[in-house]
Amino acid sequence: MIPFNKPYLTGKEAHYLYDAVYTGKLSGNGKYTQLCQKFFKETYGFGKCLLTTSCTDALEMAAILINIEPGDEVIMPSYTFVSTANAFVLRGAKIIFADSRKDHPGIDESSIEALITDKTKAIVPVHYAGVACDMDIIMDLAAKYNLFVVEDAAQAIDSYYTDRNGVKKALGSIGHLAAFSFHETKNIISGEGGMLAINDMQFADRAEIIWEKGTNRSAFFRGEVDKYGWVDMGSSFLPSELISSFLWAQLENIEKIQTKRKQHWEQYYNGLKDWAAANDVMMPFVPSFATGNGHMFYLVCKNPQQRKELIKKLKDNDILAVFHYLSLHKSPFYKEKYDGRNLPQSDYYSDCLIRLPLFFDLNEKQLKLIISTITATI
Amino acid sequence: MIPFNKPYLTGKEAHYLYDAVYTGKLSGNGKYTQLCQKFFKETYGFGKCLLTTSCTDALEMAAILINIEPGDEVIMPSYTFVSTANAFVLRGAKIIFADSRKDHPGIDESSIEALITDKTKAIVPVHYAGVACDMDIIMDLAAKYNLFVVEDAAQAIDSYYTDRNGVKKALGSIGHLAAFSFHETKNIISGEGGMLAINDMQFADRAEIIWEKGTNRSAFFRGEVDKYGWVDMGSSFLPSELISSFLWAQLENIEKIQTKRKQHWEQYYNGLKDWAAANDVMMPFVPSFATGNGHMFYLVCKNPQQRKELIKKLKDNDILAVFHYLSLHKSPFYKEKYDGRNLPQSDYYSDCLIRLPLFFDLNEKQLKLIISTITATI
Repeated sequence: MIPFNKPYLTGKEAHYLYDAVYTGKLSGNGKYTQLCQKFFKETYGFGKCLLTTSCTDALEMAAILINIEPGDEVIMPSYTFVSTANAFVLRGAKIIFADSRKDHPGIDESSIEALITDKTKAIVPVHYAGVACDMDIIMDLAAKYNLFVVEDAAQAIDSYYTDRNGVKKALGSIGHLAAFSFHETKNIISGEGGMLAINDMQFADRAEIIWEKGTNRSAFFRGEVDKYGWVDMGSSFLPSELISSFLWAQLENIEKIQTKRKQHWEQYYNGLKDWAAANDVMMPFVPSFATGNGHMFYLVCKNPQQRKELIKKLKDNDILAVFHYLSLHKSPFYKEKYDGRNLPQSDYYSDCLIRLPLFFDLNEKQLKLIISTITATI
Repeated sequence: MIPFNKPYLTGKEAHYLYDAVYTGKLSGNGKYTQLCQKFFKETYGFGKCLLTTSCTDALEMAAILINIEPGDEVIMPSYTFVSTANAFVLRGAKIIFADSRKDHPGIDESSIEALITDKTKAIVPVHYAGVACDMDIIMDLAAKYNLFVVEDAAQAIDSYYTDRNGVKKALGSIGHLAAFSFHETKNIISGEGGMLAINDMQFADRAEIIWEKGTNRSAFFRGEVDKYGWVDMGSSFLPSELISSFLWAQLENIEKIQTKRKQHWEQYYNGLKDWAAANDVMMPFVPSFATGNGHMFYLVCKNPQQRKELIKKLKDNDILAVFHYLSLHKSPFYKEKYDGRNLPQSDYYSDCLIRLPLFFDLNEKQLKLIISTITATI
């Protein structure tokens, strides 16, 4: 059986876990947390980084930081993971769902301005499959209407956007805030895990407080205050050193991991493009302003029936391919609260998108088998 | 230097971590999560258990489960950790702080009824130092006024309450819900980590959904629904298998750990009681309905000056003893929101309580040195 995903181990994870265990510092914000945070900040140009127990938690931190209150509106794509919305729902926000692009599951940037009202507080673009949304458009709208931008970069580590001036920027470094995931299905993993990147430095001090359960404990340990106490709302967002020591082993190998994943992606692309064109199947699109990061290889079938047959054919050949999100505006939880606008592209990706196995250890033979199984299908 | 705390390793942590790493299942709700949850349920008689990334997160789950809404009032002691309050503040609750008992830092049960209004939704007793609050009184009030009880059992693993009928119940098994901590400072640890215990089974299904980001994913994997989606608010409350595999090694040794910690506690008690009586220092009190669990050994000095001198004397002898909470009703975050009632006992423990080193690896020589340093002090 070729699984859909298989977590990659660099071989050093257990070594760093041992080190963390036997030095005895296991709670959060220790040596490995700081090593990882420094790496991300320096490698990708984020303003400040804080590891979290999940990407969900990083999004929740963002919602607290921008002071989301009951009635505030937050614009995001309907075609996304539940956590993108939940983080803001937990603060009382009303979610305004946008449709996806026709050429890509990411938010249709041209549809956003019409959704902005005087209650809008934030836009949350999701860099689906690690492919950038058109951030110039989104940041311009944020400036025009005085909104915050929280990048949901769950899938977008080590991916880039080139702005209208030709400046190449890491995803997650552009919005006021950004959230990353290190869940075991991502490129770089720690089982469960995430990170908040803070680019608007007005949020830097408060982020640290919210991260540390609403206390100024970090400032205390730096000697900036003489005792620490309850100064804000907050939660326990920081992960154990068990998580960050594992993550550190992954980061040491990020180039190797990314090179291999991108090769897999290219091989899929080259092996499937002619077949896709002949069968009305949409190939993954990477706009000129974006890069890929080898996170995901997907196809969009012409209809649900074609997808169903493709998944079955692959399964019959011991290959596990899976669909992805279900439009959140049609979910049991939100459909009653939703204003009823049709979001046809979101529904299209919900019904027709299929993801193929893509993981580091996927080998040449397996890739060829998957490609040949698909091209022999229809 | 004798530290205040030193995380104890049973020797099997790295082994189970290896197993989790090399079986490749690193995200949440895998083999070790289920082993730990089963252990707690069967050992302590909880209705259902869900591991969380922290005790804070378990309290947040409780606040969501009992539908805390803006304006709801929640009664809890002021002398507690910030997370007890934060979890409910995040849902918009108004915190009604109660004073502590004169003989113990736990909530003064006799003061609770006067604080109940028609907005009160929950009582959150904190089993300070692992010593039970008088749960009969609290559960009777909850029944009389139709309130929920969420036990903050962060420090209370493996401790008991004997009710008025002589039935001995594990702390965390009595309230509708209860939260535990496995932070590295606790008896049983996983670096960061916690657990929600669910005793009122009306919450069981929804708890699982909230835990899994507001989705019915768990029901899907049990084959109870044919696809899973967004059905409620929620977060990513479940910890990585890196956390639960580590925790499992601790649980295998819980009897050994508890026996040793309780011996340390007894040695402190017997070595310090005469000195305390002669110096107006309050010894830790364990009511007849409660047990100790060797979590913490504290003393309450007669005034702040005496505590200051004691901490200094210990430090001069390379022994790290520390104070504990600062009254939350006087915190920078809540003092403006507070109704102004004096809580003299809470302030007394804030000003005068000192905690002595207590950890598994504390040896006979160190214990004797700490005791003799104290008894030679004043």
